[in-house]
Amino acid sequence: MSITFNPIGIIHTPFKEIEEAPIQSARSEINGEVEVFPEFTEGLDGIEEFSHIYLLYHLNQSDQPLSLHVKPFLDDQPHGVFSTRYPRRPNPIGLSIVRLLCRDKNHLAFFGADMLDGTPLLDIKPYIPSFDIFETTKTGWFTNRKIQ
Amino acid sequence: MSITFNPIGIIHTPFKEIEEAPIQSARSEINGEVEVFPEFTEGLDGIEEFSHIYLLYHLNQSDQPLSLHVKPFLDDQPHGVFSTRYPRRPNPIGLSIVRLLCRDKNHLAFFGADMLDGTPLLDIKPYIPSFDIFETTKTGWFTNRKIQ
Repeated sequence: MSITFNPIGIIHTPFKEIEEAPIQSARSEINGEVEVFPEFTEGLDGIEEFSHIYLLYHLNQSDQPLSLHVKPFLDDQPHGVFSTRYPRRPNPIGLSIVRLLCRDKNHLAFFGADMLDGTPLLDIKPYIPSFDIFETTKTGWFTNRKIQ
Repeated sequence: MSITFNPIGIIHTPFKEIEEAPIQSARSEINGEVEVFPEFTEGLDGIEEFSHIYLLYHLNQSDQPLSLHVKPFLDDQPHGVFSTRYPRRPNPIGLSIVRLLCRDKNHLAFFGADMLDGTPLLDIKPYIPSFDIFETTKTGWFTNRKIQ
């Protein structure tokens, strides 16, 4: 049974092509801007009191995966797509944790842009350390990756 | 422009009603099971080498929000829905970080269940500390919340 979502806004960044975009928000020093559609502006109330937020978005410029094994940007070996953050995936939902710089009504300026310009925004959630920070014991291929 | 996704599996948990489910995976000591549909099994290759994973899922038992201001489970004041993790939201996408216990083909056993039984799974991503752990400086209403 398929599920339908409607974008709540658009993400603006300097990146027009996949090759230009940083690998992960944590490695980006570039600012971006979230434009939430005016009818959702009230939903942002209180967001300016958080330093970090999740952006969930539609990787609308990613084609469907040709295979369920993909080679992540940071390794030279293929892995199951669900053990990677590769953008071509069965449901192309992107997730970035970014630093919120400021809010002006329905606009959010943020640091850590790693998505393409014009990306449709699906959801925003606050990043809360006691919910979101976990101590890992294994990080699979990432531990022995070929590319730093 | 609406966006259509198709579930890649189902999440099984002991929770039949919203009132039974723990608030956030980080506060849950309950195990759950992910059943990925057989056609996506290969996409899990390598996941067993990660201790923690993101589950992204459709909050299919959450009604649409009546208002863009909602009262989160841990506070007695309403806030903009995007500054909360409240399940009734314009695009009801759930995000849980859980501890992966083991994989058996297309089944994953995990610790930290906070979603309802039968929840449609949209995506799995590996949790990688250098991508996913950020030092926050502000956590808004959560800092002064009324309920611990």
